[in-house]
Order: sequence, then structure tokens, then C-alpha cells
Amino acid sequence: MTLKTRLTELLDIKHPIIQAPMAFVSGGALASATSNAGGLGLIGGGYGDQEWLEQELNRSHNADIGCGFITWSLVEQPHLLDVALDAKPKAVMLSFGDEKPFIESIKSAGAIVICQVQTLVQALAAHDNGADVIVAQGSEAGGHAAIRGTISLVREVVDRIDTVPVVAAGGIADGRGLAAALMLGAAGVLMGTRFCATQESLMPEQAKERALEATGDTTLQSSVVDMLRDKNWPGPYKLRTLQNDTLVQWHGREQQLAQDIDEQREAYEAATVARDYDHAAVIVGEATGMLKDIPTAGEVIEEIIVEAESCLANPPGCL
Amino acid sequence: MTLKTRLTELLDIKHPIIQAPMAFVSGGALASATSNAGGLGLIGGGYGDQEWLEQELNRSHNADIGCGFITWSLVEQPHLLDVALDAKPKAVMLSFGDEKPFIESIKSAGAIVICQVQTLVQALAAHDNGADVIVAQGSEAGGHAAIRGTISLVREVVDRIDTVPVVAAGGIADGRGLAAALMLGAAGVLMGTRFCATQESLMPEQAKERALEATGDTTLQSSVVDMLRDKNWPGPYKLRTLQNDTLVQWHGREQQLAQDIDEQREAYEAATVARDYDHAAVIVGEATGMLKDIPTAGEVIEEIIVEAESCLANPPGCL
Repeated sequence: MTLKTRLTELLDIKHPIIQAPMAFVSGGALASATSNAGGLGLIGGGYGDQEWLEQELNRSHNADIGCGFITWSLVEQPHLLDVALDAKPKAVMLSFGDEKPFIESIKSAGAIVICQVQTLVQALAAHDNGADVIVAQGSEAGGHAAIRGTISLVREVVDRIDTVPVVAAGGIADGRGLAAALMLGAAGVLMGTRFCATQESLMPEQAKERALEATGDTTLQSSVVDMLRDKNWPGPYKLRTLQNDTLVQWHGREQQLAQDIDEQREAYEAATVARDYDHAAVIVGEATGMLKDIPTAGEVIEEIIVEAESCLANPPGCL
Repeated sequence: MTLKTRLTELLDIKHPIIQAPMAFVSGGALASATSNAGGLGLIGGGYGDQEWLEQELNRSHNADIGCGFITWSLVEQPHLLDVALDAKPKAVMLSFGDEKPFIESIKSAGAIVICQVQTLVQALAAHDNGADVIVAQGSEAGGHAAIRGTISLVREVVDRIDTVPVVAAGGIADGRGLAAALMLGAAGVLMGTRFCATQESLMPEQAKERALEATGDTTLQSSVVDMLRDKNWPGPYKLRTLQNDTLVQWHGREQQLAQDIDEQREAYEAATVARDYDHAAVIVGEATGMLKDIPTAGEVIEEIIVEAESCLANPPGCL
């Protein structure tokens, strides 16, 4: 079975599913497994660890994958884009910042430009700047996001932009979510949380287990973890993670945290190394409440497509 | 054309659309127009203005309507439930608080109990307490809501509760949104913002015009307006309105506002009376970005059903 959309046509992929480029989670194994299963896998360029990026690009074994960057971080290390482009990626995704300075290089290298946006204003700018694909990401998403919800953001972006495919992201983890996105007019979905809990994901096993146990109620957007990791994120972006003791202690008390930051950073780093997830962050979105297993990326994609096709044939909400 | 769902069966209505019970916006004219067009109209019981409630119940001219209450406010004036039940409503909706104390009275009066929830935990409690219908409301919604996004909350609630119909609310204003909700497994939608901008809505015309001009980007959840209106809302609920000068001035500066609250309340009240929406709140959700006209409630419902049917036959995101 296949779902043909403008996204599958443009990217020449079988299924309208993109795997999010999550820093230190989306490596070559996950990205290549996703692409080999008919989706588009993206390596997480993250904050610019060149050695890790080169290693994971190598581990993708020339699968038809792409690479994603945090745009404001890429500004500080623009040569990393060349590292990615040297590997002849199918696509490059930019999110969280002004994409304009990077678009020409990406297109010249023959890669497709995917811009992830969090507001309608950003979507219109990305379109003006030449994005080939626009991912409209709602605040339900894990990791960084802004404040608009997926269902209304996607609908509004689709309504204003009809010349390039729009992809829905945030709070989607199954075939019902894909079918819902297609109803809104999106040409596919981008998923992070669902791919965190796969065999190929580089998320530590203890973190995957926490994600499986959690519900969407127990996630929270906060700036606390970025302060503790010394990541200088600009507004309006915050990081969605599972609630834990660290957030109970510091969320809403950021000024006090700032006063004790050196000691707290040391403690946080130790918790991360120890995989102590009462204190270190498990970075997932509200869709964590839908996770029930840790399959391979290929199994995820197959299951989602089968479920979405079934929903389109028999809408689950209808009698 | 009709979309048959568990909601249409249970409520014995033609279309799976509920109109939100918005205080001082959802009067008898709007509720009866909605019900007469095949949906379920709900009068906004709001903060308990008995005279207004009786007047609007009379204005519904015995249409098959219901009534909605802010649960924590109803606790302070429980006799208002009797006022509503005396009018033999088809349904009573409770939101924002513990529904348990009221459920038996409503059921004894022969009305259907609709509980609106904002988290999975609340949904499970409402189900245990005997709700006949559960509305899962995401943070995209206008007026009061909490923090979970619609798409993931609805999916997760549907997954855990299969014995009563679940309705999607927040960020939905058209047939694509209804079709998406049905894909998630919801048995219908509840819409507020779309019904604000109707002929029968009691929202002042100037406010409707502001809603039409706005995008979803220009709404904001805040506590500022509740402080200015002297509405003592419990956490985690905040009020989504259009951004305006008042929010620019005070959002994030609530402590300073508290210090000058008497004078600011007076100014806010004056702005409301003057319909000065640079300062008074226009209470709509992110779906305000999808509003393009001010039709009748009946036209809204017809258009949404036609569009949803078309989407189900030909998913807009598919080729």
C-alpha cells in the first residue's frame, strides 16, 4: 500500500513520513533504516559536534538520507553545512532561526531544503526564502518548539501556502495522526518521539523505558534544562521533556537557578552520565503517551502506513 | 449528507458538531440556531448571571439545546444548575473543575452529561464519575484552557476511553478539522471561535471584525485579563485572547499589575464598555486565523459537513 502525496513525489520516497533530526538520537543507523523503509531519515546535526556528525554520516552507508540543523547554532559553525553537503544528502532541514543565509548553498549542492517553522509568520518567510518543503511544528513536539498547537498551525499554513508541500509535526505518533494530518491538507508527517523509541535510536535504553511509561500529561515545556546544559536558546523556543525531579525543583524558579548555576550544571552533567532520569532530561513530546513498544524504524513506518490507510477507508470516529 | 457517529447517536442530532457554551456570547439565539441546524447548541452559563441565563434560556424557544457551566464557579452558585435543569435541556456541559457533585442531578433530570477535560488524568476521572460524553480540549482553544495540544490529547484520550464518545476541541474551525478529528477517533468536534463569528453570536461586531483580521499567531494564553476582570481562576487554566496593548503592557508583569490592580481594573472595565479592543479582550482561539466571514450558525454547520464529507472522500493531503 502507498499514500501518494506531494511530499512523496518531491522527495521520491514511498511513504510520507520524515524522521526528525534529533541531536545524538538520530544517527546514521536510524536515518538509514527510515530511508530504507521508504520514509526520509534525517541525521541530527544538533549543536555541531563535527566528529559525531561525520561518524553518523558514515554510518548511514550511503542510504538516501538527509541531515537537520538547529539554524541559530549553524550560524556559529557554518562549515558543518559543508560537512553535511559533502555527503550528498537528499535533503537538509533547517529549524529555529533564519534559514535565508543557507538556502542557496543547499540548493546548489542538489539537496532539497526543508524548513521547519513554529508560526505562520515563519512559514511565510520560509516560503519567500525558497523552502522546498515546510514543516509546521506544533508545541506538542518533544525537544524544542514554540507555542502554537499542531492542528491549527498546520491548517493555517496549508491555507496560505499551496505551492510547496506542508508537513505536520508535533503530537503525531501513529497512523491515526498521519491520517488526521492528511485531512488538514498536510502532505505528510515528521515524527520525533515515535522514532526515539525504536531499536535504531541512540536514546539510552533507560530513557526509552521512561518514555514508554509516561503519558502526554507528564511532559512539560521549560527553559530549565537548557540552562543546565548551557545551551543558549533564543526565545520563543523552549524544551519539552518528561517531568522529573529537576523540573519540579527549578521550573518557575529560573532566577534562583541562575544564582546557583555552576553547581547545578555539574550535578546535571553527572545525572546525564549516570542516566539518572529522575534528574537528567528524557526529551520527548506529548506523543510519548502513545508509545507502547520499541520496534525497528521499519516496523514503525509499516504499521503507521497500514493504520493510516485503514483510517482513510474507515474513519475511526464514524459509525 | 450526514456523518453518523457515536455522538450523533447518543445526542440524537444530525451532525457531530457542538457549539461551545461561551459566557455572554452563546445565548439562546446561537444555541437554538445551532440545534435547529442539526448540531448541539449550548448556552454559556459562564460565571453565573442568573437573570442573563434565564433570559437566554427563554430566547432558545424550546429548541433542543443544552447549557454549559464553569464547574468551579457553579460550586459557588449551585442553584443555577436547577435554573438550567428547569428548562429541560438536552445536555449539560461541565468544564474546569470537579464534575462529580453535579452529575447525579443532571442525570436525574434526564439530561446528558458532557464533561470537558484538558488532560488525560481529568478524562479518566470524568469517565469514572459517569460522564456520558467527554470533550478533550487542547490549548489552542479560545477562552480558558490548559496546556496540552489538541491532536495528542484527543488521540490519547480516545485510546484510553472507548465506552463513551470523545469529542475534539481546540483549534478546529472547519470541515478539514472535523475530518481530522474523526481520523483521530473522536466522534465529533466542539467549536467556540468559529461560532463567535456568526450572525447569532452575542460577541460585539467590533470584536468579530478583530477576530476576522487576526491570525493564530496573534493569540496568547495569559492570566492578565482574568486579573483585570477580577475572575479568580484556579491553575492551570489561562485565558487565550487576541494579543493587544493590554497584554503587551502586562503579560509577564503580573506582579506589577497586582500592585496597581484597582486603577487598572477600572480602565479595563471602561475599555470593555467602549468596545476598545486595543485594550479590552477579544476572546478567541488559534482558529481565529481560519475565519473569513460571519455567516449564520446554520451556514457554518452546513459548510463544515460538506467540506468534511469531501475530505473523507478525497483526503486533501493525498494526490
